[in-house]
Amino acid sequence: MEPTPFPSWQDVASALVATAAGRAPADLVIRGAKVVLVQTREVMDGWDVAIKHGRFAYVGPDASHCIGEDTQVEELSGHYLIPGLCDGHMHIESGMLTPAEFTRAVIPHGTTSMFTDPHEIANVFGLRGVRLMHDEALLQPINVFTQMPSCAPSAPGLETTGFEIGPDDVSEAMAWPGIVGLGEMMNFPGVVNGSQQMLAEIAATQAAGKTVGGHYASPDLGPAFHAYAAGGPADDHEGTSETDAMARMRQGMRSMIRLGSAWYDIESQITAITERGLDPRNMIICTDDCFAKTLVEDGHMNRAVRHAIDCGCDPLIALQMATINTATHFGLEREIGQIAPGRRADMIVTRDLRTLPIEVVYARGQRVAQFGECLVECPHLDWPTDTRHSVNLGKSLTAADFEIRSDAAEVTANVIGVVENQAPTKALTQTLPVRHGVVEPDGIAQIALVERHRGTGGVTNAFVSGFGYGPGMAMASTVAHDSHHMIVVGTDRAMMAKAAMRLGEVGGGITLWQDGTERALVELPIAGLMSDRPATEVAAKVTQLVEAMEAAGCTLNNAYMQHSLLALVVIPELRISDLGLVDVRTFELTPVLP
Amino acid sequence: MEPTPFPSWQDVASALVATAAGRAPADLVIRGAKVVLVQTREVMDGWDVAIKHGRFAYVGPDASHCIGEDTQVEELSGHYLIPGLCDGHMHIESGMLTPAEFTRAVIPHGTTSMFTDPHEIANVFGLRGVRLMHDEALLQPINVFTQMPSCAPSAPGLETTGFEIGPDDVSEAMAWPGIVGLGEMMNFPGVVNGSQQMLAEIAATQAAGKTVGGHYASPDLGPAFHAYAAGGPADDHEGTSETDAMARMRQGMRSMIRLGSAWYDIESQITAITERGLDPRNMIICTDDCFAKTLVEDGHMNRAVRHAIDCGCDPLIALQMATINTATHFGLEREIGQIAPGRRADMIVTRDLRTLPIEVVYARGQRVAQFGECLVECPHLDWPTDTRHSVNLGKSLTAADFEIRSDAAEVTANVIGVVENQAPTKALTQTLPVRHGVVEPDGIAQIALVERHRGTGGVTNAFVSGFGYGPGMAMASTVAHDSHHMIVVGTDRAMMAKAAMRLGEVGGGITLWQDGTERALVELPIAGLMSDRPATEVAAKVTQLVEAMEAAGCTLNNAYMQHSLLALVVIPELRISDLGLVDVRTFELTPVLP
Repeated sequence: MEPTPFPSWQDVASALVATAAGRAPADLVIRGAKVVLVQTREVMDGWDVAIKHGRFAYVGPDASHCIGEDTQVEELSGHYLIPGLCDGHMHIESGMLTPAEFTRAVIPHGTTSMFTDPHEIANVFGLRGVRLMHDEALLQPINVFTQMPSCAPSAPGLETTGFEIGPDDVSEAMAWPGIVGLGEMMNFPGVVNGSQQMLAEIAATQAAGKTVGGHYASPDLGPAFHAYAAGGPADDHEGTSETDAMARMRQGMRSMIRLGSAWYDIESQITAITERGLDPRNMIICTDDCFAKTLVEDGHMNRAVRHAIDCGCDPLIALQMATINTATHFGLEREIGQIAPGRRADMIVTRDLRTLPIEVVYARGQRVAQFGECLVECPHLDWPTDTRHSVNLGKSLTAADFEIRSDAAEVTANVIGVVENQAPTKALTQTLPVRHGVVEPDGIAQIALVERHRGTGGVTNAFVSGFGYGPGMAMASTVAHDSHHMIVVGTDRAMMAKAAMRLGEVGGGITLWQDGTERALVELPIAGLMSDRPATEVAAKVTQLVEAMEAAGCTLNNAYMQHSLLALVVIPELRISDLGLVDVRTFELTPVLP
Repeated sequence: MEPTPFPSWQDVASALVATAAGRAPADLVIRGAKVVLVQTREVMDGWDVAIKHGRFAYVGPDASHCIGEDTQVEELSGHYLIPGLCDGHMHIESGMLTPAEFTRAVIPHGTTSMFTDPHEIANVFGLRGVRLMHDEALLQPINVFTQMPSCAPSAPGLETTGFEIGPDDVSEAMAWPGIVGLGEMMNFPGVVNGSQQMLAEIAATQAAGKTVGGHYASPDLGPAFHAYAAGGPADDHEGTSETDAMARMRQGMRSMIRLGSAWYDIESQITAITERGLDPRNMIICTDDCFAKTLVEDGHMNRAVRHAIDCGCDPLIALQMATINTATHFGLEREIGQIAPGRRADMIVTRDLRTLPIEVVYARGQRVAQFGECLVECPHLDWPTDTRHSVNLGKSLTAADFEIRSDAAEVTANVIGVVENQAPTKALTQTLPVRHGVVEPDGIAQIALVERHRGTGGVTNAFVSGFGYGPGMAMASTVAHDSHHMIVVGTDRAMMAKAAMRLGEVGGGITLWQDGTERALVELPIAGLMSDRPATEVAAKVTQLVEAMEAAGCTLNNAYMQHSLLALVVIPELRISDLGLVDVRTFELTPVLP
């Protein structure tokens, strides 16, 4: 299916003018609402809006003259009409859903624009993967903009991804219709140290007049921070404190504050506005990462905005942070983010500006959801067959592939220590017994990074502690940030082989095996990262998985996320990659058995 | 001289990063200032800025690490450092100065960016004239951006200009390096009525991703106003009341509030912010039109900002309206309008944020003015010879060319009535005697529109009252908005011929003749609109002209401006054009002697 571009303002200006002047009937008129104008930070009681060809033609006190015989008229007395919500930075893959299914899940929550960075698929399928996400995004009934991923691999030299992204890819992507900028520039040490490749990606984006996303994940606000800002990133969502937020805004960047499924960075940063009184125009609310379960049970941007209000932010300012601020940031203020003539008619009907119940959602003038139900089709791309067969193990794995051998009677091993509720791991050591020449993970677990992109048959083995698993189990996942090989954690090498082979068979996902049988399976057939089944279904399977993990002895919160981050070789202290065990404190490979 | 493009952020990013990181020395470091951050609306006391290649590399508490052996270091303790001021909409020709000389006049006042609409020259030389202004603009040491004029002629069918502007011209200009958008769309009835030509010009601008300037000069805030907003103009500077300003911002437009030489629209509109509490982000301060005398004696944007503060606006908000708001409006927030990394190092040193004395001005990191003196060269374009010979009368004019003949003994004539301190005129009638077959302007004056673009020899004669001139005089001007033919007003037909011929001889300007001799002359040889002499010289000559007008009996304020507006066939009630007397209430030609 070819995306049909939504008509531009100039395409339909003649009709908008005629409608506003009363010479042509509107398609839809909504009357008597409390219209929230984020452009002036006002609520206009009893105003009307008239919509033509999916855009606002008239916004004002009386749209009677825009009503014709075929105009649909709705009375909204007593209700607020607010602009559709914009998510300023996020990764669709985090929901383990395709763009279509993610969209279908968020529309009832009032999200009408998303700025998505398909960074995960970039690691698996490179520029082609980004293009596929971009193309499915353009099929959607809401505005799904794409940021071109900047950093694949995340840690050059320490891991091998399926494909890599470079400045030429960035230049090429800047000409695609749905690209709004560069995705988070995570290689902040590269920028600070003047990496020519990173600066070339930024330059290609700036030359195209588009927005460079930032990612400065460090508490250091000294010269390195200033050097990063001088490099060109226009926003940052890695701040966690009021000081972080203020520092970013003072450097002329926009501070993006997150409420994702596992990110809680609004409360600690919004005080820059609510208490320190900075101009709020440069603060933006985003989600970054939301799991399917959050979308199904809690919401999306409405949850984040509501939370900002609960943290003491004026509701109109909080709405600005999720509408006009975002639109302005991406150079789209004439297109989205406010209820004003010419803009896409994206809007939400709600009874209360503080609790934000989402009653009806309109996108491009079309009623797309009401009372939690999505009313429109979210078209799926016809994903090429090979994108559903991305798990290439190269050989049949057996228990022997997971053996770590030693001639000693016992060894002192380097062990990845998982820490409850934290992304960083600990670099631990532990004495382990050797039986028949094989090191046994008594009391802890083995971890394996199984190469799955090029079919090399490579398996990197190491040890991990902290999950609490009992004997006879293994869990495998092809969601394995950021290179997305396969991570297998287990206390039984035969089960590890079973789990790995199972993911090869279903094309990727997450599976848990115990005592010879599969206890849970989340199929993620597209790139091994996403399902094209509805969010409710995926969320239910994840719930089963979590239950199976608990049954296998796991004692951690969010343990499947912890599992998926164990190959993220940019966050300290110890991680695993296809090249070996990585000490992220020094960015060097380190042996499992020193 | 070919303009050398100022290097882009991406051109110098590597050096900026190295400077901020402390690996390379800055060119200039300013220390210990009270740095005004318009991006957060804060003043940071004791901050430093480091500049490299004309851009800010570091803005923060301590730039010690950016200082090398060759770094110039300045201590600013006790002084404020504010961003250079941006004029959001203006016409250079109004100063009767070339871009170079206008620039030289405003730099000491702290203006470092101007958004100029060379609408006047467009009427004389069409697209080529715009290009010449654009090219001289790009030679300047400050940022002179060009808006492509949209409406030449202003009133199609009611006047003949030297050249016309159409959608193809707009499309072509959008690709020029210094073009930032479309100049004020003055044909608001055209937009409201769906003129395909006007909408095509707007469409070409929007398709290029640039900003459409507005001009809605009507108190009607009903459907016509809404239709205009729906047509695409992104700003408007014709509002005169609080209601006007609020109406524009509510429609998602930016309200530009003016303090020009003859415009006083700030005091009446800024209360939308200061009293009604609207979000100030969508209000912008501009000058629109400043005479040379104002620039020499009173200032430019500093005068306008100071006035806004005097009207009760918070100084930091007033500064935002002349810096970041303007930059954001034109999609240039990563380039100008704030003291932040990567932006052009345009800044002003001042001791006081309320009175805004402009002590030192930096543009692109270079010290361009101090204590009222411009320190840099403002290069002149080598204007083609023919642009200095734009007054083509086509024949030698004599007193007889200014005769209005009648066979009657007396006539009742339609008379243009000039009104003190107002742009609109009155449509009057007056009984006038006829002697020897010629109507005599007893007690009032004659007015003639002399065709000067195509050398047709055409002279349109009519009557005007209100100047107060005594006998034996004539004043001629080639500044004759908007078609810029020549307007001659006089009480003596021989003097009218002398004055007109004199302007043909000097290539345009303004001249006053009385009793057989020239009493004042302001030479404006370029296009008959501008002088390439310094502002002080032009202002002095204008002062002589005003004195000569008073000596000739003129009793009006700003009478030379009134004179120059008598052919502006878009402002009611009665005007003159090369096609005849125009009743602007009905947009129809009307006879002088009905």
